Amino acid sequence: MTELDKGQKPTKYGIALFPGFQALDVFGPVDILNLLSKSTNLELAILAPTLEPVSTSLEAGGFGQSIVPTHTYEDAPSDIDVLLVPGGLGTRDSARIAAVVAYIQKTFPRLDYLLTVCTGSALVAKSGVLDGRRATSNKRAWKWAIAQGPKVDWVLKARWVTDGNIWTSSGISAGIDMMYAFVAEVYGAEVAQDLANASEYRRNTDPNDDPFVEQSGVAS
Amino acid sequence: MTELDKGQKPTKYGIALFPGFQALDVFGPVDILNLLSKSTNLELAILAPTLEPVSTSLEAGGFGQSIVPTHTYEDAPSDIDVLLVPGGLGTRDSARIAAVVAYIQKTFPRLDYLLTVCTGSALVAKSGVLDGRRATSNKRAWKWAIAQGPKVDWVLKARWVTDGNIWTSSGISAGIDMMYAFVAEVYGAEVAQDLANASEYRRNTDPNDDPFVEQSGVAS
Repeated sequence: MTELDKGQKPTKYGIALFPGFQALDVFGPVDILNLLSKSTNLELAILAPTLEPVSTSLEAGGFGQSIVPTHTYEDAPSDIDVLLVPGGLGTRDSARIAAVVAYIQKTFPRLDYLLTVCTGSALVAKSGVLDGRRATSNKRAWKWAIAQGPKVDWVLKARWVTDGNIWTSSGISAGIDMMYAFVAEVYGAEVAQDLANASEYRRNTDPNDDPFVEQSGVAS
Repeated sequence: MTELDKGQKPTKYGIALFPGFQALDVFGPVDILNLLSKSTNLELAILAPTLEPVSTSLEAGGFGQSIVPTHTYEDAPSDIDVLLVPGGLGTRDSARIAAVVAYIQKTFPRLDYLLTVCTGSALVAKSGVLDGRRATSNKRAWKWAIAQGPKVDWVLKARWVTDGNIWTSSGISAGIDMMYAFVAEVYGAEVAQDLANASEYRRNTDPNDDPFVEQSGVAS
């Protein structure tokens, strides 16, 4: 399944955008890559339905920020190693995310790693590639998220979950901890900790330590 | 100095962008506002030298992300309540940030709050508005940062520092904790903690707790 030769580290990253994505789901993990790119040759493809800027807001003129894509899903590079799928309110609209779901379905067999943040796992669940796999998601959106993938082995209490080459994290900020753990596994523990120190970030390093289950009330 | 009536909460935010800004310096704090904007009416002006998208990367085709501004510094709204100034490698180039420095100088007397993240405080120091004030900055870039403002009362060991209506935070991720503290002060402690729970973020709530002084070796 993997296209990387043994021991080779991934260099080609993709981000799967859609209108109404959550900003920190993307920029928490991606800013770690921004720092890593200063010492390691990395490439980034920012994918979206069209080449028009994609807003975090679903309403025109709403409070939000717009990001410029580099490729559409149709002409995405075929050699992406790692795909990051954020969540956000945009995941609730099946029509709006249809192109993303179809792209994930088509592309997953070629990927080395698939990473999701927050309700990005619900979006990926719709594509079927999480079926039979362990995964987690946002705690406040839990009931909706798990309904998107009835055949997924959902793990409620987790900061992030790995199953094979799929990494899924809990809500929004959890993506930062997942990405540091991913960098530690793939590029080395020292590299990851040095980036966290550069970013002055206090990592949560235990994937099972998740206080937000209780806070969200989803378990009650 | 403040244009807000007593007890009125700020609603109009501005972000001061420049090429080579650090992504998380912006999106850490701003994603908290994205969440807050669902319950509180907020407006956002994304300011840049021109209306062209602004990249986190200083090299054309470099690893980065481009954000779409809403206004230039020249035609910025005159009623911004809170201005957020990020840091990043772009702060090192005086010519590149000249428009931002001039804008801050001109605008500061009209602002209710000025917030900086990382080396954003070095950029603001160049404008003179930090003179005689307590402020902090990125720990790895400390020596360069403090040289930008010889009349600033720099505080080495701090997650963030407040002096009057100016809030400055340490490197990159520290901006997230500063913004939750700012939201707690301005909109209420419960509002801030509810947003942190929604974002599944474990806050560092002590502004004096800063392990990154030691890690950076700047004090030695």
